[in-house]
Amino acid sequence: MDKQRTLDEVGEFGLIDILTKNFNTTKSTIKGIGDDCAVLEYSADEYQLVTTDFLLEGIHFDLVYTPLKHIGYKAVVAGISDIYAMNGTPKQIMVSIAVSAKFSVNALEQLYDGIRTACQNYKIELIGGDTSASMTGLAINITAMGTVGKDKITYRSGAKVTDLICVSGDLGGAYAGLQVLQREKAVYNQNKDSQPKLAGYEYVLQRILKPEARFDIVDKLKENNIVPTSMIDITDGLSSELFHICFDSGVGCKIYEERVPINEETGTVCAEFNLEPIIPALHGGEDYELLFTVPLSAYEAIKKIKDVAVIGNVVEKEKGLGMISRSGDFIHIKAQGWNTSEKR
Amino acid sequence: MDKQRTLDEVGEFGLIDILTKNFNTTKSTIKGIGDDCAVLEYSADEYQLVTTDFLLEGIHFDLVYTPLKHIGYKAVVAGISDIYAMNGTPKQIMVSIAVSAKFSVNALEQLYDGIRTACQNYKIELIGGDTSASMTGLAINITAMGTVGKDKITYRSGAKVTDLICVSGDLGGAYAGLQVLQREKAVYNQNKDSQPKLAGYEYVLQRILKPEARFDIVDKLKENNIVPTSMIDITDGLSSELFHICFDSGVGCKIYEERVPINEETGTVCAEFNLEPIIPALHGGEDYELLFTVPLSAYEAIKKIKDVAVIGNVVEKEKGLGMISRSGDFIHIKAQGWNTSEKR
Repeated sequence: MDKQRTLDEVGEFGLIDILTKNFNTTKSTIKGIGDDCAVLEYSADEYQLVTTDFLLEGIHFDLVYTPLKHIGYKAVVAGISDIYAMNGTPKQIMVSIAVSAKFSVNALEQLYDGIRTACQNYKIELIGGDTSASMTGLAINITAMGTVGKDKITYRSGAKVTDLICVSGDLGGAYAGLQVLQREKAVYNQNKDSQPKLAGYEYVLQRILKPEARFDIVDKLKENNIVPTSMIDITDGLSSELFHICFDSGVGCKIYEERVPINEETGTVCAEFNLEPIIPALHGGEDYELLFTVPLSAYEAIKKIKDVAVIGNVVEKEKGLGMISRSGDFIHIKAQGWNTSEKR
Repeated sequence: MDKQRTLDEVGEFGLIDILTKNFNTTKSTIKGIGDDCAVLEYSADEYQLVTTDFLLEGIHFDLVYTPLKHIGYKAVVAGISDIYAMNGTPKQIMVSIAVSAKFSVNALEQLYDGIRTACQNYKIELIGGDTSASMTGLAINITAMGTVGKDKITYRSGAKVTDLICVSGDLGGAYAGLQVLQREKAVYNQNKDSQPKLAGYEYVLQRILKPEARFDIVDKLKENNIVPTSMIDITDGLSSELFHICFDSGVGCKIYEERVPINEETGTVCAEFNLEPIIPALHGGEDYELLFTVPLSAYEAIKKIKDVAVIGNVVEKEKGLGMISRSGDFIHIKAQGWNTSEKR
């Protein structure tokens, strides 16, 4: 009997497996549940990519310190980041919102101002959605659609032993920014006359409040004729995404702590909070950077791409998922359990 | 200054206009915001249809009297009904859920059992989604995709003066069923030992708990070579949907109360609740029937289709939207204001 199983016990990936095990797909669906996007037949040389994301007040954002314009912008970024993670190009989004009566028209205009700004920056279209009442706060669902060349599509499952493991940008910044915001919120709750101290935290605050999706990396890979063997966007943290790639590809990995890119300001903030910077990099999430693997032969080409770091390499499955620490120890990387949100 | 405008003041259609006025579409988007589905270029002879719907606990369903399996089934029906309303064929759905910790794995399995049953009945595929935590209860978002022949696509905007106004099935049943469920819930809240009295209400309860999308009507129209001039599914009530078709088509309408199809059991339940049966038919919603217009020349062919009633005809815009009551009076039909959910 499994009547009593709780969500915590099965974990989010376990839950997804349980819920979706009896669903079948047909030949028009190239890939259903199990990657950043679903993949559908589209034209002779392209697939269509589709993905959907929830953003909920109290879970994914806190209106106390997040301007609505930024929430709108980030909702779009979160949606299209999954399209880039398949090496594709986003084209359209649909935005559904559920709002309680506490929101004014003006507040929702700010939300849509952010959505519109993101649509302009990423050259995508808002094509529809659903507007609903809500009992509690704001809920947003974004469905993003795009296309990818059949010869360019990159799944989580193609990593091969000896491949290089690469990551764009730097990691842990969003988590560091969140710590600052939560601290200032706590101070404000103690004293409503206090002003938040945000100076000197510009970089990490931008990472949590206005992340960008890495279309530039996808473009650079194309320019350099590199098709990654696997790719995923970093929404739950490096360890969780490494786990997805390794599990789906049937491989292990070895990464080096010293090579994991961490911004200087992120390091400073981590010190303030008595955190090892590698912890938010591994487990923080919401960085929206790309984690991907390329063949060893692409090393020279990859080195030339600005803002990409090679952090390790793919190894045999039996060797497991490991990180060599700064002190030379081998640390097993573990997948995190139930998180705020998980794409199927 | 419009800072102080509330959602109630602008109404849901006003809100949608305000929020989406500055968004542009490109040529790959045939129709963006403003119909049951967005319409995208797809192949030489087909368009792709995409639609998204929120279903929220406390707004769209009440777990006290709605089994989770039925919620899953109805969520799919609500999504694909919009595809049928464009004269199309649904192919895929994506389901996102946000759940609070009060739900067990078993409860969510029941939800997905309903989703799977609907996928089988309507021959569609679940291709992905998002799973998230929630602060409060259950939220579901369904994105449905499908295709439609370019020569078959039916918008809300094509109704012409003299066209016949047709409706499938019967109306008001879902609202009548909801009244029964709410009454029994109130009785139960007074006395937890009481058993709900549901015998004799089978039809109206099925209408609210397990509605079906009218693929059979779309099939019959095809078989009879009828392409409706306009079509919409009845989710908010006949009056609201008539308003959409008339507004988008630039026409008026005249319907006859006596021709609006109402099931006998719906009538009996309405009598119990001291309701004129035409009221839930006009304003009740959630019937998931199809409202459509056809040229006068299709009258003989339409008459042959079982379960379709001709309830009136399209008139000049200047004549407005009217219903001739059983007593022969002309009653202006008014669009309802803010509702639980509105598709863009």
